Amino acid sequence: MDDRGRILLRAQRPTPAREDGDTVMRAVEDVLGELERGEAWGRARAVGIGSAGPVDASAGTVSPVNVPGWRGYPLVERVRAATDGLPVELVGDGVAMTAAEHWQGAARGHDNALCMVVSTGVGGGLVLNGSLHPGPTGNAGHIGHISVDLDGDPCPCGARGCVERIASGPNIARRALEAGWRPGPDGDTSPAAGARAARAGDPLATASFDRAAQALAAGIAATATLVEIDIAVIGGGVAMAGDVLFAPLRRALREYATLSFVRRLTVAPALTGTDAGLVGAAAAALRAFPDPAAARLRSAVRG
Amino acid sequence: MDDRGRILLRAQRPTPAREDGDTVMRAVEDVLGELERGEAWGRARAVGIGSAGPVDASAGTVSPVNVPGWRGYPLVERVRAATDGLPVELVGDGVAMTAAEHWQGAARGHDNALCMVVSTGVGGGLVLNGSLHPGPTGNAGHIGHISVDLDGDPCPCGARGCVERIASGPNIARRALEAGWRPGPDGDTSPAAGARAARAGDPLATASFDRAAQALAAGIAATATLVEIDIAVIGGGVAMAGDVLFAPLRRALREYATLSFVRRLTVAPALTGTDAGLVGAAAAALRAFPDPAAARLRSAVRG
Repeated sequence: MDDRGRILLRAQRPTPAREDGDTVMRAVEDVLGELERGEAWGRARAVGIGSAGPVDASAGTVSPVNVPGWRGYPLVERVRAATDGLPVELVGDGVAMTAAEHWQGAARGHDNALCMVVSTGVGGGLVLNGSLHPGPTGNAGHIGHISVDLDGDPCPCGARGCVERIASGPNIARRALEAGWRPGPDGDTSPAAGARAARAGDPLATASFDRAAQALAAGIAATATLVEIDIAVIGGGVAMAGDVLFAPLRRALREYATLSFVRRLTVAPALTGTDAGLVGAAAAALRAFPDPAAARLRSAVRG
Repeated sequence: MDDRGRILLRAQRPTPAREDGDTVMRAVEDVLGELERGEAWGRARAVGIGSAGPVDASAGTVSPVNVPGWRGYPLVERVRAATDGLPVELVGDGVAMTAAEHWQGAARGHDNALCMVVSTGVGGGLVLNGSLHPGPTGNAGHIGHISVDLDGDPCPCGARGCVERIASGPNIARRALEAGWRPGPDGDTSPAAGARAARAGDPLATASFDRAAQALAAGIAATATLVEIDIAVIGGGVAMAGDVLFAPLRRALREYATLSFVRRLTVAPALTGTDAGLVGAAAAALRAFPDPAAARLRSAVRG
C-alpha cells in the first residue's frame, strides 16, 4: 500500500489454523514471497501486521486464540527475517480496523474515537488526541472483554458479563433460541438469520438484539466516560443488521452516557469493508515508521 | 508551586457553596489577592485549577454538582482577569489528583496508570503514554460513572449500576445498614465506622466492602482492557480502610482482569495526601504551559 492508501499489491493464503506453528508460518512466507516478486515491492519501507489477538507488540509475539500452533509465536522477528530486515509494526486486529476507519472511514476527522467490530467476537481500538492508541502491547480498545454485568454469565475469558458474552453474533442467536425463537423452514439459526427474523418483527429475535444493544451501549458509554471519545464506529457482521441493532443502541446510549461531557457522543456504522485489517495494518506501520523524506519536508515547512 | 513541586505560597478560603455565583467567585478572588501579595508571586507564570466536576476545559467553564450557583461558570476567564492575564489550565479534581500521583506519588515512573479517589464519590484520571490524559474537556478517567452492572440500581447520574453507586463510602455504609449491620453504642453509621466494623470482623460490614471491591475491580479491569494501564492507584477516605478494601480488591481483580495483557496490573494506595489537588493542578499547568526557557534548553540539548 502506498502512503495515500492505495493497494499496490495483494496476496493471500488460507490460514492452516489447526496445523503446527511452522506450517502456519509457511503460509505467511508464501504471501511475502508472492509480494516480493511484484514490481512495487522495491519501494516497500515497512511491514504492518494486524493479527487476531492476543498480541504482544512489546515482545513481537502473537497468540491468536484460534491458532493453537502459535502461542507466544515470534511473528515480528520471523517476518523481519523473511523481508531482509524491513521494520515491522504489529497491532491487534481491532486496532488495525480502527486505524483504517480513522484514515479512510467513519472516524476520519475525529480526534477521539472508539472503533469496534461486532461479529463472532467483539473487538475494538481507540483513537486519542488525534492518534491511534495501540497501547504498549497493541491490544488497547479491547471492549469485548470489559464486564458490564459483574454478576453475569461466565465468559470464556474467565470473567463474567463481558460485552462479547452478551453482544456477539453467536450469543445473540443463542439467547433468541433459548428464549424460544424458532428459525424458518430452512432451519438456519445463524446470527444473520436471527437478524432477518428481528427485521421481520420476531419479538424473541428483537429482544435478543435489544439486549445486545444495551450491553454495547454500556460498554461504549464506559469508554467515553473513561477517555472522552466523541464517536463510536461499529463494523462487523452484527452491525450489518442495521436498524435492528443501531436503533436500540442509540436509545440505550442515552440511558448510559449521562454525564455532560459524553452526551454528544454519536454512533456510526463502519465504512471500511473486508480490507479494513489490511489498510489499517499499513496505516499503523506508516504511523510507526514515517517516511523520513516526508518528515523532513514537514519539518522544513514548519520552520 | 515551583517546577520541582515545592509549595511556595498557600492561601485558602471556605467555599460558600450555597451562595450565588458571584459570592463564590469572591472567595476565589480573595485567595488570589492573598497570593498576589506574597513575595514569590512575581515569578508566577501560569495558574492551574483543579475543580469538582463536571468541568469543561474546552469552554473554560465549571459546573460543580454541589455548587448550584456555578452552572457553566466561566471560571477560567474570571481567573485570567483577576491575575492580569496569566495563562490558566483547568482540569477536573480526579485528573488533578492523577497528575500529583504521577509526579510525586505511587504512579511515579509508570507510563500508563489509572489514579482514583474513592470517597463520598468516586473519581479518577489517566496517565497514557507517559503523559496526563485529561481529554478534550478535562474529565477523562471518570471511572465512578461507568456501569459495571447494567441492570443495577439507578445512579443519581441517570445510568444504572455505576461504580460509584456500589463503591462510594456512603453506599458501602448504606448497603451494610440495609443488610442489618448495627453500629456501636456511639450510633456512628459513617463510612469510617463501617470500615472499623469490617476490620473488627463484622460480617455485614465486611460483605459490603467485598461488594465495593468487586465493583472497583470490574471498573479497573475495564479500564486496563480499554487503555492498557499497568497500575491502579487508589486514594480517598475509603482507601484508608486498608486491607478491608485492598485484600478483596486484589482477589476480585484476578477474576475480572483475565486477558494476557492486563494480568500484570497492580493496585497501590495513593501517596499524596490532602494537597493532591493543589499539587496536581500545578502539575497540569506546568504540562500545559512549559517554561519557555526550559523548553529552549531541552531543545538545544537534543540538538
